[in-house]
Amino acid sequence: MAVTMNEDLRRERASATFNPELLTHILDGSPENTRRRREIENLILNDPDFKHEDLNFLTCSQRYKVAVRKRATLVKKIREFGISDPDEIMWFKKLHMINFVEPVGLNFSMFIPTLLNQGTTAQKEKWLLPAQGLQIIGTYAQTELGHGTHLRGLETTATYDPETQEFVLNSPTVTSIKWWPGGLGKTSNHAIVLAQLYTQGKCYGLHAFIVPIREIGTHKPLPGITVGDIGPKFGYDEMDNGYLKMDHYRIPRENMLMKYAQVKPDGTYVKPVSNKLTYGTMVFIRSFLVGEAARSLAKACTIAIRYSAVRHQSEIKPGEPEPQILDFQTQQYKLFPLLATAYAFHFVGAYMKETYHRINEDIGHGDLSELPELHALTAGLKAFTSWTTNTAIEACRMACGGHGYSHCSGLPNIYVTFTPTCTFEGENTVMMLQTARFLMKSYDQVHSGKLVCGMVSYLNDLPSQRIQPQQVAVWPTVVDINSPHSLTEAYRLRAARLVEIAAKNLQTEVSHRKSKEVAWNLTSVDLVRASEAHCHYVTVKLFSEQLLKIQDKPIQAVLRNLCLLYSLYGISQKAGDFLQENILTDSQITQVHQRIKELLTVIRPDAVTLIDAFDFQDVSLGSVLGHYDGNVYENLFEWAKTSPLNKDEVHESFYKHLKPLQSKL
Amino acid sequence: MAVTMNEDLRRERASATFNPELLTHILDGSPENTRRRREIENLILNDPDFKHEDLNFLTCSQRYKVAVRKRATLVKKIREFGISDPDEIMWFKKLHMINFVEPVGLNFSMFIPTLLNQGTTAQKEKWLLPAQGLQIIGTYAQTELGHGTHLRGLETTATYDPETQEFVLNSPTVTSIKWWPGGLGKTSNHAIVLAQLYTQGKCYGLHAFIVPIREIGTHKPLPGITVGDIGPKFGYDEMDNGYLKMDHYRIPRENMLMKYAQVKPDGTYVKPVSNKLTYGTMVFIRSFLVGEAARSLAKACTIAIRYSAVRHQSEIKPGEPEPQILDFQTQQYKLFPLLATAYAFHFVGAYMKETYHRINEDIGHGDLSELPELHALTAGLKAFTSWTTNTAIEACRMACGGHGYSHCSGLPNIYVTFTPTCTFEGENTVMMLQTARFLMKSYDQVHSGKLVCGMVSYLNDLPSQRIQPQQVAVWPTVVDINSPHSLTEAYRLRAARLVEIAAKNLQTEVSHRKSKEVAWNLTSVDLVRASEAHCHYVTVKLFSEQLLKIQDKPIQAVLRNLCLLYSLYGISQKAGDFLQENILTDSQITQVHQRIKELLTVIRPDAVTLIDAFDFQDVSLGSVLGHYDGNVYENLFEWAKTSPLNKDEVHESFYKHLKPLQSKL
Repeated sequence: MAVTMNEDLRRERASATFNPELLTHILDGSPENTRRRREIENLILNDPDFKHEDLNFLTCSQRYKVAVRKRATLVKKIREFGISDPDEIMWFKKLHMINFVEPVGLNFSMFIPTLLNQGTTAQKEKWLLPAQGLQIIGTYAQTELGHGTHLRGLETTATYDPETQEFVLNSPTVTSIKWWPGGLGKTSNHAIVLAQLYTQGKCYGLHAFIVPIREIGTHKPLPGITVGDIGPKFGYDEMDNGYLKMDHYRIPRENMLMKYAQVKPDGTYVKPVSNKLTYGTMVFIRSFLVGEAARSLAKACTIAIRYSAVRHQSEIKPGEPEPQILDFQTQQYKLFPLLATAYAFHFVGAYMKETYHRINEDIGHGDLSELPELHALTAGLKAFTSWTTNTAIEACRMACGGHGYSHCSGLPNIYVTFTPTCTFEGENTVMMLQTARFLMKSYDQVHSGKLVCGMVSYLNDLPSQRIQPQQVAVWPTVVDINSPHSLTEAYRLRAARLVEIAAKNLQTEVSHRKSKEVAWNLTSVDLVRASEAHCHYVTVKLFSEQLLKIQDKPIQAVLRNLCLLYSLYGISQKAGDFLQENILTDSQITQVHQRIKELLTVIRPDAVTLIDAFDFQDVSLGSVLGHYDGNVYENLFEWAKTSPLNKDEVHESFYKHLKPLQSKL
Repeated sequence: MAVTMNEDLRRERASATFNPELLTHILDGSPENTRRRREIENLILNDPDFKHEDLNFLTCSQRYKVAVRKRATLVKKIREFGISDPDEIMWFKKLHMINFVEPVGLNFSMFIPTLLNQGTTAQKEKWLLPAQGLQIIGTYAQTELGHGTHLRGLETTATYDPETQEFVLNSPTVTSIKWWPGGLGKTSNHAIVLAQLYTQGKCYGLHAFIVPIREIGTHKPLPGITVGDIGPKFGYDEMDNGYLKMDHYRIPRENMLMKYAQVKPDGTYVKPVSNKLTYGTMVFIRSFLVGEAARSLAKACTIAIRYSAVRHQSEIKPGEPEPQILDFQTQQYKLFPLLATAYAFHFVGAYMKETYHRINEDIGHGDLSELPELHALTAGLKAFTSWTTNTAIEACRMACGGHGYSHCSGLPNIYVTFTPTCTFEGENTVMMLQTARFLMKSYDQVHSGKLVCGMVSYLNDLPSQRIQPQQVAVWPTVVDINSPHSLTEAYRLRAARLVEIAAKNLQTEVSHRKSKEVAWNLTSVDLVRASEAHCHYVTVKLFSEQLLKIQDKPIQAVLRNLCLLYSLYGISQKAGDFLQENILTDSQITQVHQRIKELLTVIRPDAVTLIDAFDFQDVSLGSVLGHYDGNVYENLFEWAKTSPLNKDEVHESFYKHLKPLQSKL
């Protein structure tokens, strides 16, 4: 493929008002991080063993095979290069695996961490090294065919038999079949299975068990185990998501993970001291997903914005050459708010990571006080960022016109790989309702005269004696739509108002003699709305605070515009909320619409450079359309010609089916 | 698979307040239509030649082959059964082809109609019968690698050579390669090619030419023709979308379609009398797409609502059995507004079809007066309904949790087949701007004292001497949020207001000494907004008018609730627009939120039956999750076990790549 700098992109880069390298340092966290990341990326880019191949040209089964091979190369190379820092391994994976969906992934991301967190010392000694060395390939089996969100509803049983000192694992119904675990379909030989523990005739709820499922050596399913692939999916072709049915299948007592709860040889159950610590992994994964949302969105924006700079189409002035489609206001309006969102979510992701590590240290010192808020915040932000990103990736794809629908754009692949994030690790609506539960608790606390702290501290300012929600209007505030700080304030008021409305509606339902649970259900639309407003406020707040940390003036200026665009765009989309309580006036909303259009023009010259600063390697975008350089059309034509669809025996179908019809005429 | 009535669905059906059969008659247009549709569907369902196979289990190439085979069967059977009515052929196709994406489709939907519309009598005599008999398999080649929307930008040339009386067709650049035409990659032997006509040294713009591309008999590309498949896409696996490069390729003069424009043997160009008539096909296809949007959305809702009735999860009251997820307010809030939208769009589609036929008759009598409005309306409604449906299908998918991501739900396939509708036959933003152009013209007309008629007649009511747009507020109107008629009025006011704002902003830009074209671009966000408001108004209006035509009281009642839900949900989403000009008050917006929640509860008992009334056959849904009957989990398990992913040699990858790593430990 051609690698001369594309003329349109060259001009775009020349027009930038800031130095993208400095912005890359900010995004990476430090210049040193940028340097080291690139060093690792270059290991991959310069290594012939990492030859890139286009997954879009492969069938589902072929993609699985490539993913297994890639993971094997990865493990070898990480050992060879001596990379051990988790962040560095992540950079390595991200570039090498493109979307790093792969069958052995759960061994490292779920099996080993669960073993480390919930296993006794003896258990770790037995299983950790084999799992790290891939003698054991483990997965994590929780969801069942008929059960996802509601853990108490899981049906798989583990019944202790004191005579043999074994657990009998059983899938009593079709709905109890374990369903979805990654790597289960073909790859794993062990699974950590979540099952309802029965001992001495009593059920003690969900516990984790290490279950061998395939024979080491032959890799055949063990007797009593039925295991397979759950079938084709929207994406995730590389992953053998599987099912697991256990028929009175016996494992030794020692295979129950017993760091917390225990079952003694005689069957006596010993309760865990605290359950809170198991929060940890969940909170970690969800806060990680916020950063991944930012990353997926930034990739989608990179492709769509570069292509929009290269694509010339239609005319603005008759007779003049076709303009770049990035010069159309409608195209800017589609893409620039998403670019701003990618930056916003990046900073939220960085904040979540930092906060997680800080609170994790506190937990190490026995201080669990901040855990509930962190738990609530990660739940809501996981949902908020993944929903937004999900829609945004498709908006980017459709902004690329017809070519967005071709796999050459890379965008369909980014979408299908990302979209499960809205469902896994906590279904988004359920996540929003978890955040709402915390918000309601905080509201009640304030209402009963106590102060709350952290991100919900705005609830302290709610005038406590008010009767009519309308009176929020009297809060003294004049929003300056050109100040990120003042806009944060506007979002803060909106969140406070929607939390209060939800709380009052909840109260009303209760007062109509509904049970608490029914009342909760009948208010849940309001509760989700309140959580969204809370998360939106947090995002705006973190973005505007980020601006204060930036030294470089030109970068501060351009990020300030992005922050304004993000905040004002959100207001224009939810104008009703801001108008209803006079947080903004009618004429301010009109100004917001105008100001957004102005900001599009202001951001326009920097758009491509703002994208470049994310510093994605072409290979990690998986896109022909979004290359950093080169002639996009020549590349597309080459790509199509290489496609295996042009290598089939083209005429077979024609001769077999259509020709006979002709002769019958 | 089990075919006993699912117990949950049985209970749902028993609770309905109306007779679904009567509603099916309304949706089909008459009881007779329903009867005949079912008769044709049964021909397929009872015919062993139409054995259904799951496309999700096939590779891209296999899907292509199946589609060709199916089309061949279809042609044979249509001949055999003697079906000739276009509507009946459509029913036949819809059931048989599932999404009826298939390689020979463009021969019938584009090649033959274009020949009929633009060919001379002699040309029809030459090509029509062979095309109908599949001796000729034709496609329609318009878009190019570098050019889509902007027809004047197309680069392919057809230069007349009077010496040989031939046209020389040429693709001068990479960007001029024809790109995307369906059936071009492998199937077609002819294409109607759109090219810039040059004769006697002058360019006369785009004209259509019949171009042989593959040799009849051998099916090999003819010399001078480079043709192939454009590569894998997000969906449309069955379709061989292709590219076509012509290298000074000669065709006889007679191959230019000459019903309107002509080139004489000596090269003299004869202009067409009117261009308006070529509007016809475009208008027809776009109005057809509105109905297809309704149909795709209804399918997605069918799957999601049936599954939500069958799926039990979580708990509302602790200790009680897990409720159907359809009992969660958040789930109702996700799905019922979409159900209401499916009905709304169905009625809009029926209206468009009827209007098209009426105006087409007028055109037959030489009356073109209504064509501009119809053209503007179809453009906007195509965009409005396809954007909404696009988002809605994904919302349905995600409302099915994890299983929505599996191809067993059928939803990924519905989505990827539908989503190109936002781009093809007129990219949606471009469509909205076409509607806006008509709205601005109508506004100017009113402003200059003339009345306008049709759907834009509300512009006549704009007080013409106003200076401040705020004065719209003084229009005498009190909206009754429980009256569909009054809500239509609210949407009417909103549309009028947003058209006026766009017009004034356009004027302001012009007054800042911008050229008309630049001003248009700088107002285009407002223009799209105005068009959306116009289309939203039309949809609400048609839905509420439909209610008046319904005799059956129970059906009228349930459709009235759907109409209210559709209208109120739209208001809640765009509350800012309705508040800003006091179309509704703050407290009315609060009431709207409350009323929506009440309507969810009211619609709940009828939800499954409202879905049943669309009367989709299981096979046409392409979904295991959305079956009319049976045990969804047993069906899912069977489906997974049948998947070819469980037939691969499972362990090959394991032995090849992972085992060597183990031994190296």
